Amino acid sequence: MKRIAFQGEPGAYSERAVKEFFREHSFWTLPCRTFGEAFAAAHTGQAEIAVIPIENSLAGSVHQNYDLLLKHQLHITGEIILRISHHVMALPGVKWEKVRRVFSHPQALEQCRDFLEKWPAIEAAPAYDTAGSAKLIASEQWQDAAAIASANAASEYGLEILHRGVESNPQNYTRFLVLEKEEKIPAEDGKSSIVFSVSHTPGALFKTLAVFALRDINLLKIESRPLHGSPWEYIFYLDFAGTPRQSHCQKAIEHLEEIATFLRVLGAYEKGKVIK
Amino acid sequence: MKRIAFQGEPGAYSERAVKEFFREHSFWTLPCRTFGEAFAAAHTGQAEIAVIPIENSLAGSVHQNYDLLLKHQLHITGEIILRISHHVMALPGVKWEKVRRVFSHPQALEQCRDFLEKWPAIEAAPAYDTAGSAKLIASEQWQDAAAIASANAASEYGLEILHRGVESNPQNYTRFLVLEKEEKIPAEDGKSSIVFSVSHTPGALFKTLAVFALRDINLLKIESRPLHGSPWEYIFYLDFAGTPRQSHCQKAIEHLEEIATFLRVLGAYEKGKVIK
Repeated sequence: MKRIAFQGEPGAYSERAVKEFFREHSFWTLPCRTFGEAFAAAHTGQAEIAVIPIENSLAGSVHQNYDLLLKHQLHITGEIILRISHHVMALPGVKWEKVRRVFSHPQALEQCRDFLEKWPAIEAAPAYDTAGSAKLIASEQWQDAAAIASANAASEYGLEILHRGVESNPQNYTRFLVLEKEEKIPAEDGKSSIVFSVSHTPGALFKTLAVFALRDINLLKIESRPLHGSPWEYIFYLDFAGTPRQSHCQKAIEHLEEIATFLRVLGAYEKGKVIK
Repeated sequence: MKRIAFQGEPGAYSERAVKEFFREHSFWTLPCRTFGEAFAAAHTGQAEIAVIPIENSLAGSVHQNYDLLLKHQLHITGEIILRISHHVMALPGVKWEKVRRVFSHPQALEQCRDFLEKWPAIEAAPAYDTAGSAKLIASEQWQDAAAIASANAASEYGLEILHRGVESNPQNYTRFLVLEKEEKIPAEDGKSSIVFSVSHTPGALFKTLAVFALRDINLLKIESRPLHGSPWEYIFYLDFAGTPRQSHCQKAIEHLEEIATFLRVLGAYEKGKVIK
């Protein structure tokens, strides 16, 4: 039975991504304290697989995980997209009128700002993560506190949901990546993720994008990250439609190798399903 | 006398950026609790100018400030780059051997990880900001705590520096932008910042970069941010060498208007000096 690492407490959104992606398989989950530990678990063999969030449709990329993709020699083998819905939860029997503090991850608090602004007397308290806030309230048996977390976290820690769907913007999706030691390029249609750097000369980035435009390959995402040790130089992470099994994509990668000062294919995988 | 808004407590790195950039002028500073408040102060006229960090050479962009540039109608009128050096400070007379907790902003703690790992018994305690950590120790008169902050914060709050320059990587620079209501395009050489979006079609981003490549205009930075309400679509922030006073740059902007679905020039300004 495979062991799958994720960051956060049981009940975290990442754990739900694991359960949805591997719903037809049996597996153990390995909760990790940090993203770095989840990557390291899959890298060292403590787990066979890691599942990590890479991008939220409101907050943007999880930049730390882009940096960790570069640091660890893992392959992206899958993707899943979760609709994120935040709920306010407290100990059974606690009335909303008694709540003085609401705990959650700062990003979740930010995503529920419109709701929280309706209750200015209630303190928004930043915490380590969303499910961790629910766990804290359950373990401390706080009668005057609530957490903002997933429905899974409420059932995991025996809390009652007082307000459902308190996120300001319903177009709130998080994209997760499945990481393994071995690559698994899909036979059929898919997408690819690469990371590369170019020399600091005029037109360098333009030439790299030409590699794809000249072959009508659709770019899905471009992300730049700082190159450590070389201030104001960048490495680029690019997602495009197609996989190296398709000859025009393989040729694009070979063409990019001529231009880039560094290039690595992070993985080729099926486009993720959206789970509501 | 002009009033200049920045985020953080007195002694913050942003305040140092203000003092260095306006060293030949008289001004008042207006410390703000959040970046949003600093932008709003300059927008509403509570301050004439705001100075905000936009990018760190190790951590990458301050994404929230990219979003705020789009939200507020302010112009970038200047830039300054500070070498960031973190120091460990405590109340006068406190010995390092007595310190049990070190407070700082999570990003500063991360940047000093190599130092902190040498002292595993000392707790790294995340706090609201770097200078705020120094203020906290001074106001609470904690004898067993230290802060990681700037030399300015040590003198501001009467703390003594116990360890100097504890950052892991000396290539640690932060780039700050100066924001005002009126644009101030420099007469001579400079750089420009723009924000734009393109239709979600193959080659769209490639065409926008062609506008610059065809005119040998050097791109300095590209940053993508999610378009709220349209998951997996993006807006792009681009810095390039030159200003709209130079005809090839003006023509590039006009050409880009033909291609982009949205375009705004955020400002044209002199390249920032580097302050060690």
